[in-house]
Amino acid sequence: MDPVEAHLARVLAGIRPIEPARLGLEAAQGGVLAADAVATTPLPSFDNSSMDGYAVHASDIAAAAAEAPVTLPVTDQIPAGDIRAVTVAPGTCMRIMTGAMIPGGADAVVPVEWTDGGNRQARFSRPVPKGNSIRLIGDDVAAGTLLLPEGTRLGPAQLALLAASGHGSVLARAAPRVAVIATGNELSEPGSPLVPGRIWDSNTYMLAAAVRQAGGTATRHRAGDDPETVLALIDELSAQADLLITSGGVSMGGEHDVVKAALSGSGAAMADMHFGKVAMQPGMPQGFGVAGRARTPLLTLPGNPVSAYVSFCLFGRPAIDALQGLAPRPLPSRRAELTGSLRSPAGRRSFMRGILAPDAATVTPLTGQGSHQLGALARANALIVVPEHVTGMEPGEVADVLSLP
Amino acid sequence: MDPVEAHLARVLAGIRPIEPARLGLEAAQGGVLAADAVATTPLPSFDNSSMDGYAVHASDIAAAAAEAPVTLPVTDQIPAGDIRAVTVAPGTCMRIMTGAMIPGGADAVVPVEWTDGGNRQARFSRPVPKGNSIRLIGDDVAAGTLLLPEGTRLGPAQLALLAASGHGSVLARAAPRVAVIATGNELSEPGSPLVPGRIWDSNTYMLAAAVRQAGGTATRHRAGDDPETVLALIDELSAQADLLITSGGVSMGGEHDVVKAALSGSGAAMADMHFGKVAMQPGMPQGFGVAGRARTPLLTLPGNPVSAYVSFCLFGRPAIDALQGLAPRPLPSRRAELTGSLRSPAGRRSFMRGILAPDAATVTPLTGQGSHQLGALARANALIVVPEHVTGMEPGEVADVLSLP
Repeated sequence: MDPVEAHLARVLAGIRPIEPARLGLEAAQGGVLAADAVATTPLPSFDNSSMDGYAVHASDIAAAAAEAPVTLPVTDQIPAGDIRAVTVAPGTCMRIMTGAMIPGGADAVVPVEWTDGGNRQARFSRPVPKGNSIRLIGDDVAAGTLLLPEGTRLGPAQLALLAASGHGSVLARAAPRVAVIATGNELSEPGSPLVPGRIWDSNTYMLAAAVRQAGGTATRHRAGDDPETVLALIDELSAQADLLITSGGVSMGGEHDVVKAALSGSGAAMADMHFGKVAMQPGMPQGFGVAGRARTPLLTLPGNPVSAYVSFCLFGRPAIDALQGLAPRPLPSRRAELTGSLRSPAGRRSFMRGILAPDAATVTPLTGQGSHQLGALARANALIVVPEHVTGMEPGEVADVLSLP
Repeated sequence: MDPVEAHLARVLAGIRPIEPARLGLEAAQGGVLAADAVATTPLPSFDNSSMDGYAVHASDIAAAAAEAPVTLPVTDQIPAGDIRAVTVAPGTCMRIMTGAMIPGGADAVVPVEWTDGGNRQARFSRPVPKGNSIRLIGDDVAAGTLLLPEGTRLGPAQLALLAASGHGSVLARAAPRVAVIATGNELSEPGSPLVPGRIWDSNTYMLAAAVRQAGGTATRHRAGDDPETVLALIDELSAQADLLITSGGVSMGGEHDVVKAALSGSGAAMADMHFGKVAMQPGMPQGFGVAGRARTPLLTLPGNPVSAYVSFCLFGRPAIDALQGLAPRPLPSRRAELTGSLRSPAGRRSFMRGILAPDAATVTPLTGQGSHQLGALARANALIVVPEHVTGMEPGEVADVLSLP
C-alpha cells in the first residue's frame, strides 16, 4: 500500500497549471495572477486632498492665530472628480473636497473643521505646514513598481489595488473547472421515490460543493455500470474540464468496478492511470492519471461518501491548488486532547470524524465512523489523524487534528 | 463618537433574517437551514453489504477452516442497484457487491478476499459471525430523527447527508443578495484612460468580492454626485436586494456628501437612517438604517477604500450572517507580538494592516497605513487592533490581531 504522501506526490506530479487567461476583475476573484502586475501609473495618480477643507498657500496663513485670524477670499470650489486645471492665486483660497485634485499654486489643505467654513470667504485661525492634508502622487504605489507578484491569489483587497491602478483585466489562472462523476446503477436522484436496492446520489452534490469551496467550479454527472458509457463520458468531459473526479468503481470486486473497467482493456488507450491502495482509512482504493481525448487529470475516489470526502480533502484540494500553479494549502492542523477513545487499523492512517472544541483544546470523536456514515461527517468540524502504527488512543491522549473547511 | 460595538449592535438590531425559500441542493450551498431537516426514511434504507463478497447463511460455514474448507454453490449475483427481491437458500450463497441489498435468508457477507472468488461455486475456509460485513438499515440515521437542525450552514457534508436521505430540496435562507453602490463623479471604470482629477473605481470590485467571500451574492453599481439619482438608485435596488452597501458620500463636507444628501431633506421620507461617527480608524464616518421602497437595510461606508474594507469586515460581514439568521462569525482573533511600532489616535480603535507570521507568533505592521493606501491592504493578511486608550505600541508588545478572510 502507498503511504498517503506518496499518492499525494503522484497527484501533484501529474498536474500542470492551467493556461492563464485574461480575466475581467469580477471573473478574476479567486484566480491566481499568472504574471507580475505592475503599476503603469502612480497611485494616487495626482496630488489630492485627504480632507474636506480649503486649498491655500501655506505662507498666506503662516501668521494666523485664534486672536489674529486670517481671512481669504474663496475663489472656487473643487469637488472630487473635477478635471479642470485651476490655480489658487496668492492671497486667495479654494474650497476643496476629499479626493479632489490639488489646484495649482496651493501647497496645503486646511481641514474645514479648523475654519469658519465660509463659502465666499474663509477665516483661518491657525497655520498649517506645507503639504498638510495632501496625499502626494504615488504615495501609495510609485509608477513602475510591482503591484502584486505572479502567484498572488486575488481576493477583495488585491482586486481593489488592481482596479485603483487602472487594470481592467489581469492575466490569471481562473477557478479550475472540475467535472464530478458518480458511477453506479444504484444511484437515483434525491427527491425521487425510495426504491429498495437503490440509493440517492449524494456524492455528486458533496464533491461539487467541496470543489466550489476549494476554489473550483463544478459540474455534476452520473453514469451507471456500463464501462463504455463511463469511458465515453470521461472522454467527453475531458475536453471541458481541467480535472475529472469520479467516485465509486475502483474497489477490488472485479467486473463491477466500472471506472477501472472503463479505463482498462480497450479503454486503456484512452488513459494512463495508476490504481492502487493507499494506507489510509477511510479511502483505501485510489487512482490517479490522465484520461480522455484531452488527457485531463483524473482522480478516481472510492464510492463510500465519507471515503470520497476524506479523499477529496487529501488529494482533490491540493490538485485544485496545483491547477492554479500554487503550492497546496494544507488543511489547518493543530494538536488537541481526545475526550474519547479511538480504534484504528494497524498500517493505515485513520482520519476519524470529530468535533474540535471552540477553544481547540479538546477534540471529541463522533460515533458512527463507518465510511458510509454521513451523519457523523455532517456534524464533524475536524478529522482526527491516527498514525499508521497506532491502533488505539485513549481519552487524554493528544492527537493531530485537521480542521475541515 | 459611538464605540465600534455600539454601531455593530445598531446594525444587527436593524436586520431581520431574509425569507426562507425552498432551494435545490446545489443552490443551497452556503445557505442556512430555516427548519429542522428530519430523516423521513432510515439511512441506509435497506440492509446492504459493506464488502464485495458472498451473502451466506453464517451457520452454513460455521465449521469452515483452512484444512476443512466449505464449498457452496453460487446461485446468483447481486450488484449494487439490483432491486430484485431474491432469497439465498440454505446451503447456497450469492455473489454480492458493496452497497448491494442483502438477499433474503442471508445473515452474513464473507469478503471475497477470504474465499477463492469462484463464480459458480465458492470455497470458504473460515467462519464469519452473523451480521458480518452487513450495514444495517438505519445504522447511520434512524427514520424520524433529526438530520440537521435549523440554523445549520450547508456545506459539502451537510448537503451529502440531505441528498443521501432523499431530500431533493430544503427550506433554507440562501446567500443574501447585496447591492454595492459607489458614489462620486470622480469614479471611472478600470481600464479606461487616465484622466487627472478622476480615479478608477475600486470600491465596487472590492466590496462585491468581499460580499461573495462572506457568503452573499453581489451586484455592482455606480452613481455620481446627484442626490436624486442616488436616491432613485437606492430605491430601485432596495426591491432587488437584501442589503444595500454604499461607499462614499458620508463624510462631514456638507453638500458634497451625496449619500447623506440623498437620504435627507425630501429623501428622508424614503429612509430611516442614522449617520454618525464611530470611534475607529480608518472608517470614522458610518451610517446604517433602512431605505427605499422595500425598506431594505442600508450600510453606508466611507469612501476611502481601506476605510470601506475595514468597515465591511466589522459591520458588513456580521450583517450578512444576520440576514441568514445566524449569530455573526467574528474574524479569527489571536494575540501576537509586534515586530514594529505603531501610532494610533487617542479615543479611536485602530485597525492597522499587518502581516501575521505563518506561526502566528508575530505580526508586522506594514508601511502605508493611510486610509487610501491599498498597497499595504493588498499585502496584509491581518488587522492589528490598537485599543482606544493606546496611542502607541512598540516592538515586543503583544497586540490583538484579526485574520483577514
